[in-house]
Amino acid sequence: MSQHTLLLLSQDNDHYERLLRAASLPHLHILRADNHAAAAQLIGQAHIVMAEPARAKPLLDQAHKLCWLQATYAGVDTLLDIGSRRDYQLTNVRGIFGPLMSEYVFGHLLNLTRQIPCYRQQQAQQQWQSHPYQGLKGQTLLLLGTGSIGQHLAHTAQHFGMRVLGVSHSGHEKAGFDQIYQLAALNRVLPQADVIVSVLPATRDTHHLFNAARFVHCKVGAVLINVGRGSAVHTGDLIAALTSGRLAHAILDVFEQEPLPADSPLWHLPNLTITPHNSAYSFPEEVAQVFIRNYVRFIAGQPLDGNIDFDRGY
Amino acid sequence: MSQHTLLLLSQDNDHYERLLRAASLPHLHILRADNHAAAAQLIGQAHIVMAEPARAKPLLDQAHKLCWLQATYAGVDTLLDIGSRRDYQLTNVRGIFGPLMSEYVFGHLLNLTRQIPCYRQQQAQQQWQSHPYQGLKGQTLLLLGTGSIGQHLAHTAQHFGMRVLGVSHSGHEKAGFDQIYQLAALNRVLPQADVIVSVLPATRDTHHLFNAARFVHCKVGAVLINVGRGSAVHTGDLIAALTSGRLAHAILDVFEQEPLPADSPLWHLPNLTITPHNSAYSFPEEVAQVFIRNYVRFIAGQPLDGNIDFDRGY
Repeated sequence: MSQHTLLLLSQDNDHYERLLRAASLPHLHILRADNHAAAAQLIGQAHIVMAEPARAKPLLDQAHKLCWLQATYAGVDTLLDIGSRRDYQLTNVRGIFGPLMSEYVFGHLLNLTRQIPCYRQQQAQQQWQSHPYQGLKGQTLLLLGTGSIGQHLAHTAQHFGMRVLGVSHSGHEKAGFDQIYQLAALNRVLPQADVIVSVLPATRDTHHLFNAARFVHCKVGAVLINVGRGSAVHTGDLIAALTSGRLAHAILDVFEQEPLPADSPLWHLPNLTITPHNSAYSFPEEVAQVFIRNYVRFIAGQPLDGNIDFDRGY
Repeated sequence: MSQHTLLLLSQDNDHYERLLRAASLPHLHILRADNHAAAAQLIGQAHIVMAEPARAKPLLDQAHKLCWLQATYAGVDTLLDIGSRRDYQLTNVRGIFGPLMSEYVFGHLLNLTRQIPCYRQQQAQQQWQSHPYQGLKGQTLLLLGTGSIGQHLAHTAQHFGMRVLGVSHSGHEKAGFDQIYQLAALNRVLPQADVIVSVLPATRDTHHLFNAARFVHCKVGAVLINVGRGSAVHTGDLIAALTSGRLAHAILDVFEQEPLPADSPLWHLPNLTITPHNSAYSFPEEVAQVFIRNYVRFIAGQPLDGNIDFDRGY
């Protein structure tokens, strides 16, 4: 069997090179490029690329031998623009982000419902004063997206006693959900939701899914959390929904434009929480394991895990 | 069958009276006292008292007909002082606080590990900057107390991928724990723990369980969370452990003296989080259900749920 040349194009090249060399994968020749010049020079030799999608994108046209691109995280939308190459296998990382996403969503949600900033402020003033609160028990969580992340979130929510509804493309049943609906039913489901969490990828179907016409269907005082892709929420309409009080609070890790520009009005909304797209992190140890499993399948000619359907967009 | 007179002695008398009258419990005559004068006048008629323990305590000597006291929350230590009456059944509320305690413990823990205050501050400065973090996955949680609250916490921790150790009086196995040790083994177990959570009641065995000699066994950089009783932690020694960095952070909902005095040095420690003893709240709807179930047992002569062993202290 001939050699396969892998080009590492990641911010974590050190980690990945060490982990993959230690795995002694058969017939694998590992190259790395730590800057754009090196990448441009080496890309033509690579049968396999392991990269953050944004780093790989400008090099795709010169990747003449490319068979397979393993993205180091979940979101690959930048590689799916109209006119982009589709003559290779694109895989993303799935199935490892559930616990981190649950940490983010429930950490931030409980920060809100259990009034942690308020007690922090009181502490600074030596003030011992309890305030009423509601537990999550009995509240309804609506999850947009029912894949592995959505399923972990659903189980966490059920553990805290929440009722869990889901919306997905297919509407198929999944473990952890009380009920799953198709996307077309979203307006009917929204009025039931106390908390709405989107883990949706950026596709044509999800673009500006939350706009003014959609927010009208939300329960007054609902909380919206977006850990999927920023394009799912219309920024201007979100500002209106937060200002009018239709939404009590929003927690956003993703934005239509990232990094969020310093002059964005979002920074100043009192009922909005902003984090810099870090709700889940691709720990190199875990991503390397995903690559290793996939490489074994690749050389055996088997289907790869996390294979992206270019038409569907995920 | 003769009438049983119940005296309500709670801050939530309105709620309890409405809920218990709606239940139309047989042979039950309901009285309420909303202040100390009324309580002193009515206490002599009561066969049953439903009360916050601190409200009932000064009236116990005049409760000549008392058979059963249902506490409205979990901690009844104030009724267990040496020389206190023991000639009645004392029950507390158990089994309903797990989800709220999990919300508190994981809300505050994730607030810390996911650096929520840091991103809040960055947002105020329109700053988009991500910082490295570790997930809870693979970390070790040590739970002191393996009752219903400890078990809920254990399941939450396992769901986030943590290894869960427990310490209890008996050391008996319980669901959700990887391993449970007896209290005597605490010093051997402590060095393994990244996060230590005490849900222990106030008893002789737990008094100042965490003192200078104990903190020596903690992993450097461990986090201590106390949602049990303040007496389990020696305040001065805790300050030393937080100042030296032996503990990275402590999160305390309970204190040796409550309310925490305005001149306590605890208020000013940068690596200490203080909340005013509200990690779980006795929602009247749930406590009333506990009383109703117990009353049915009481008139049938059956053992009551949440019965306190005066010797053991819980």
